[in-house]
Amino acid sequence: MARSWLSISPGSPFSLANIPFGIISTQANPLHRPAIAIGDLALDLDKFASNGGFSELPSISQHLAVFSEPTLNDFAALGRNIHHDVRTYIQQILQEDGKYPAVLKDNPQLRDQALLPLPSVQNHLPLKVGDYTDFYVGLNHAYNVGVLFRGPDNALQPNYKHLPIIENPTATPKVPILRPSRKLDIELELAAFVCKPNELGDPIRIDRADEHIFGFVLMNDWSARDVQYWEYVPLGPFTSKNFGTTISPWVVLTDALEPFRTRSRVEDSQHRDGVLPYLREKRADTAYDIRFQVAIQPAGLGADGREIFCTGNARDLLFSFPQLVTHHTVTGCNLNTGDLLASGTISGVKLGTFGSFLEATKNGKEPLALKNGETRTFLQDGDGIIITGAAGNEGHYVGFGECAGVILPVVTYE
Amino acid sequence: MARSWLSISPGSPFSLANIPFGIISTQANPLHRPAIAIGDLALDLDKFASNGGFSELPSISQHLAVFSEPTLNDFAALGRNIHHDVRTYIQQILQEDGKYPAVLKDNPQLRDQALLPLPSVQNHLPLKVGDYTDFYVGLNHAYNVGVLFRGPDNALQPNYKHLPIIENPTATPKVPILRPSRKLDIELELAAFVCKPNELGDPIRIDRADEHIFGFVLMNDWSARDVQYWEYVPLGPFTSKNFGTTISPWVVLTDALEPFRTRSRVEDSQHRDGVLPYLREKRADTAYDIRFQVAIQPAGLGADGREIFCTGNARDLLFSFPQLVTHHTVTGCNLNTGDLLASGTISGVKLGTFGSFLEATKNGKEPLALKNGETRTFLQDGDGIIITGAAGNEGHYVGFGECAGVILPVVTYE
Repeated sequence: MARSWLSISPGSPFSLANIPFGIISTQANPLHRPAIAIGDLALDLDKFASNGGFSELPSISQHLAVFSEPTLNDFAALGRNIHHDVRTYIQQILQEDGKYPAVLKDNPQLRDQALLPLPSVQNHLPLKVGDYTDFYVGLNHAYNVGVLFRGPDNALQPNYKHLPIIENPTATPKVPILRPSRKLDIELELAAFVCKPNELGDPIRIDRADEHIFGFVLMNDWSARDVQYWEYVPLGPFTSKNFGTTISPWVVLTDALEPFRTRSRVEDSQHRDGVLPYLREKRADTAYDIRFQVAIQPAGLGADGREIFCTGNARDLLFSFPQLVTHHTVTGCNLNTGDLLASGTISGVKLGTFGSFLEATKNGKEPLALKNGETRTFLQDGDGIIITGAAGNEGHYVGFGECAGVILPVVTYE
Repeated sequence: MARSWLSISPGSPFSLANIPFGIISTQANPLHRPAIAIGDLALDLDKFASNGGFSELPSISQHLAVFSEPTLNDFAALGRNIHHDVRTYIQQILQEDGKYPAVLKDNPQLRDQALLPLPSVQNHLPLKVGDYTDFYVGLNHAYNVGVLFRGPDNALQPNYKHLPIIENPTATPKVPILRPSRKLDIELELAAFVCKPNELGDPIRIDRADEHIFGFVLMNDWSARDVQYWEYVPLGPFTSKNFGTTISPWVVLTDALEPFRTRSRVEDSQHRDGVLPYLREKRADTAYDIRFQVAIQPAGLGADGREIFCTGNARDLLFSFPQLVTHHTVTGCNLNTGDLLASGTISGVKLGTFGSFLEATKNGKEPLALKNGETRTFLQDGDGIIITGAAGNEGHYVGFGECAGVILPVVTYE
């Protein structure tokens, strides 16, 4: 595998094999602008492009303006082929003995201007998010929650393996009161940004769905379970989830994950035979081997106080992202650049692999013991949750950076 | 009540008391631009503004650019006070013996350029729609559907009167197939566009919610009931509703409906006492007396073949639009200019007042007889649905124009 002329630590999520895209600003330049992450540096693409950085890539020459935009939407809208060209070109520029050393490697002035230490850059929302659809294709999570609320015999609804859906635990409503959630939870998810739009009335066929997926981010779909139980029937979630969602700062392009295609490990004959024809895929390796880790940093502790809440893998998703795109549009519904499609909670089958406290503590009945002696049923004020994820091996990780958030005390409403 | 120097038929939905805003284009000028409707004319606000039409309204002078925009988002974002000034000013301009006759009344050249016959203008989406939330606060519809799926004893979920929610009929899933819907339905709804945004984390208090509502449109939330039953459990609706939604072309400003405030006619003590404190309103007249009519134009017939499917009234909504805004944001969720909040289906209590075929035909069990001898359980290819609505009395109607759509044959997917 190729090495870079930059020194990149073997453990970095941003190896030469990755080249994820994001939006940054710095104290020296508060302008929001595109960048890629490489090792512990960010390459400022605005600065890079405006100083002839792309001079050896003719196919992008008439599109250089996208690198001066405050979001990645215009770059995403250029389509998969351009994304491929730009990512490959940047790999060549950064690669030891790569092409065009004069562009950056042997151009100390541009290096000084365009290569910024990651700790010195502020990340911003990479795309202006359009519509947002959260699916529920983590089979184990669906089963685990189903057991909690309907028992093992009815854990999965009969339609579960036929169509991508989400969960709606049945509840016993009481007279409601407004108070801070006592069951604040997380959901470990993988999400995809749409690049290529489709016209209203023009469904995206399963064999073309890949072209519409710009790339991926980690997601934490914060959930107030007590509110959710109350409002969920018959609505489905609303205010229990609309207060905030966190994504990781760098978009890992679909191309970067190609080498890590694999089969879902939760698919079975019932799924393969039961899935509707318009969702059937030619290839079997439509999942990704992406390993996740969710850490909790208890209130009052520093980063050294972090401990692992769970690990996970994207192979535990039953449906592929192309299937989500095709199902979303089979009615003619149009997707737009910047729309975000999330997987739903990703869980394994045993404690330590559950992507939510709901599962890990059996809805609060079995508290988790933390190293600092405290216990948790759900999150407490001051708790930090840090989701990381990566494919590949040491020296060549394709990672996402941190999807991190801290729970602040509620602001009294009345 | 004031009269206009323009001749306006007494039956026009666009009386001087209305002045609804929309986006138009014409064959002569394909540019999308703002306009208001008055009688059977549209006043081109781009032409009007660029020819000194607003010269007597200083408060708008630095904002005239909003009238050259292809959507009303920028105008909406100016806030309720500016909306009030502009609407009142236009009323004065159009009013018999009104102020500033030189601006338009005695300016034949500008009249010729800016006043366009409605049949000659093409309407376009009035605002770029941001997020869209469909509620379910039509109490009678909730009860009617509840009876159909759960029986009269459990028609309404215990939480129904406490929070604005939507419906999720229980279903008995079978192995699915992909085919054109055989239960294509309508939903008569009223929807509000958001003007003033709120910051993430900054809930909108109930006593300030009015400031965030730009105005109202009629909505038809087309629904494929057979698909809905299949996917609804446990998801709630997705592909059964994401294929299309129709709204009326002119936005009736919140100010124009002020005179028609009234009490909800479905509220009761259980609602008044059970509603959460953050949703309690000082005034009781938080509903609107808006009368609706839904007409069906059977396949193959012209406009003279239309017949009334149902009538309705916005007084049948249990929650007010300010309550929807406040509930949506009580978690800190942010609303943006152009977000659309819909009421859910509006129904009365007897045949002829049901806002959906689901209710009117008891889920297809009791077909409706049409004048042309045909029957309908749900919609057929070629059927047209035309929703109209108005407040006020002859000569002074505050109406919405037509929310109209025609069912085209399905395009075979495979």
